[in-house]
Amino acid sequence: MSRMTILTEADLRRIVSLDLDAVACVEAAFEALATKAVAMPPILRLDIPEHRGEVDVKTAYVPGIDAFAIKISPGFFNNPQIGLPSVNGMMVLFSSKTGLVEALLLDNGYLTDVRTAAAGAVAAKYLARKNASVATIFGAGVQAELQLKALTLVRPIDEVRLWARDPQKAEATAKRMQAGLGIQISVESDPSKAVAGSDIIVTTTPSEEPLLRAEWLEPGQHVTAMGSDAEHKNEIDPVIIRFADLYVADSLKQTRRLGELHHAIAAGLIPENQAFPELGAIIAGTSAGRRSDHAISVADLTGTGVQDTAIATLARDRAKKAGAGTAFES
Amino acid sequence: MSRMTILTEADLRRIVSLDLDAVACVEAAFEALATKAVAMPPILRLDIPEHRGEVDVKTAYVPGIDAFAIKISPGFFNNPQIGLPSVNGMMVLFSSKTGLVEALLLDNGYLTDVRTAAAGAVAAKYLARKNASVATIFGAGVQAELQLKALTLVRPIDEVRLWARDPQKAEATAKRMQAGLGIQISVESDPSKAVAGSDIIVTTTPSEEPLLRAEWLEPGQHVTAMGSDAEHKNEIDPVIIRFADLYVADSLKQTRRLGELHHAIAAGLIPENQAFPELGAIIAGTSAGRRSDHAISVADLTGTGVQDTAIATLARDRAKKAGAGTAFES
Repeated sequence: MSRMTILTEADLRRIVSLDLDAVACVEAAFEALATKAVAMPPILRLDIPEHRGEVDVKTAYVPGIDAFAIKISPGFFNNPQIGLPSVNGMMVLFSSKTGLVEALLLDNGYLTDVRTAAAGAVAAKYLARKNASVATIFGAGVQAELQLKALTLVRPIDEVRLWARDPQKAEATAKRMQAGLGIQISVESDPSKAVAGSDIIVTTTPSEEPLLRAEWLEPGQHVTAMGSDAEHKNEIDPVIIRFADLYVADSLKQTRRLGELHHAIAAGLIPENQAFPELGAIIAGTSAGRRSDHAISVADLTGTGVQDTAIATLARDRAKKAGAGTAFES
Repeated sequence: MSRMTILTEADLRRIVSLDLDAVACVEAAFEALATKAVAMPPILRLDIPEHRGEVDVKTAYVPGIDAFAIKISPGFFNNPQIGLPSVNGMMVLFSSKTGLVEALLLDNGYLTDVRTAAAGAVAAKYLARKNASVATIFGAGVQAELQLKALTLVRPIDEVRLWARDPQKAEATAKRMQAGLGIQISVESDPSKAVAGSDIIVTTTPSEEPLLRAEWLEPGQHVTAMGSDAEHKNEIDPVIIRFADLYVADSLKQTRRLGELHHAIAAGLIPENQAFPELGAIIAGTSAGRRSDHAISVADLTGTGVQDTAIATLARDRAKKAGAGTAFES
């Protein structure tokens, strides 16, 4: 007989949230990616154009973590027409020692949201100025809220500007965020004004055209671009990458193919094989992070399998402690 | 609320077996692979050398099939030391229309065994002589038994020779097969004698060195090599591929990289981009199959995601009819 634990989204929301533990486990995963013999194969991608569907499968084995997650993320963009969410998804957690299934995490993307925002916290922790207090968020979706919350975990944020394509959605999101975090949040209709005088800019959109222009940036600012996780997505002016004092990838292999870096390479601004530090190397201290208060830094986050393995293992451990979930024997 | 069905290995063994329905669904899947806009991404592979573990993830979307499977196959080769099987695994079946999970098939590799053997039946059906009655099996594992059963579904097999590296295991397997199928099975210690006068030779081993020599082959024979599903595996003399009258791949993209063809290319016997027919094209009638009773034909089977999608969908349909499995709502 083998036994696995099934955790539903409701179970997972009760036991895992975006907190310092989640940030710490994602931070450790990035450090492992830079320092250990992590196995992180390229993303498996299945397209079902007839139903505007796409499925990504990610995984990573991190030496020292006793389990590895395989994450299956379907996005079916006709779903809203029939009253279903576009994005679903689950993670399966396997023992790294035996390959047996330990847990089935039916999170519908919730754990991905948490680990993605946690990466934003890690990026800000290592790249933004210590005294960064003004944040600008581009976008008004789930990640807009979570990325802001992530910043507040690592920096003394006391002023927030929000810009989104849809002003009504921006207002609603700002209101909700303000209530949730107790920080003053203003909606800006002019994105350049949202950026002026800000310390950290986080782009959280699915944009296919640059939203953040290079000429708006000021010395000392840190930019995290986290919306681009596919070839066609592009949130920031590729020139920013060329002229930033520090460009950092979550996984250089991925950002060269899927991230903002990909567009800078395609535009001929960056040679294809130019070396850049990865976030994990900066955490580990083997690459330099921000060198001065005047530097402009950029973090290009595409989402990595190590984050999934980290958060899924945290969820399993929390579930065990809390006695959460349903045991299934087979 | 969304609802999925969980099927255990025991459930699946009750409702799915290697029969003509299983063969027909795999045959249709191969035909679709050749004629429709099937999406079958490269296999995702994760290696965990510390625990002698490897994990393959396969998937395929077949237009016309309303679901797609994602199959996760862990093999952990230290497991027997702690009393666990090396190979486990599961399939997750998703709706092709919405991406929602429909079924979790905790088959521990059983469905893979069935769909793999079914491919052997399809290969023999299209490539072996109609009157083929003598079969030779190399190997004494699960696939040795299933591949033989598969042949009996499509050809009038009445004599069987079995060769395996371990003579004791060969005897035990032959006895079991004879009891199961009611066909005379002899164990041969000399593989060349096992091949002489045979009509169909199926190699089912994990060998890393060729077992079947080119000089043993006779006109009219059909060879199915199904053991090689990774770069280092190699069951048949690469010269066989060079001199066969007909070489057929399950997926040419895969056999060039993982199959017997890979070794013929590596040996410089076959140009890397030489075209060969795929099994699906022969089923569809767009490529010629066997042209004469004297031809030597070879099927190189590496295992494809379309087979997984086909068998998983069959399992779901059978489960629905039989009311099998456990419903889980989340």
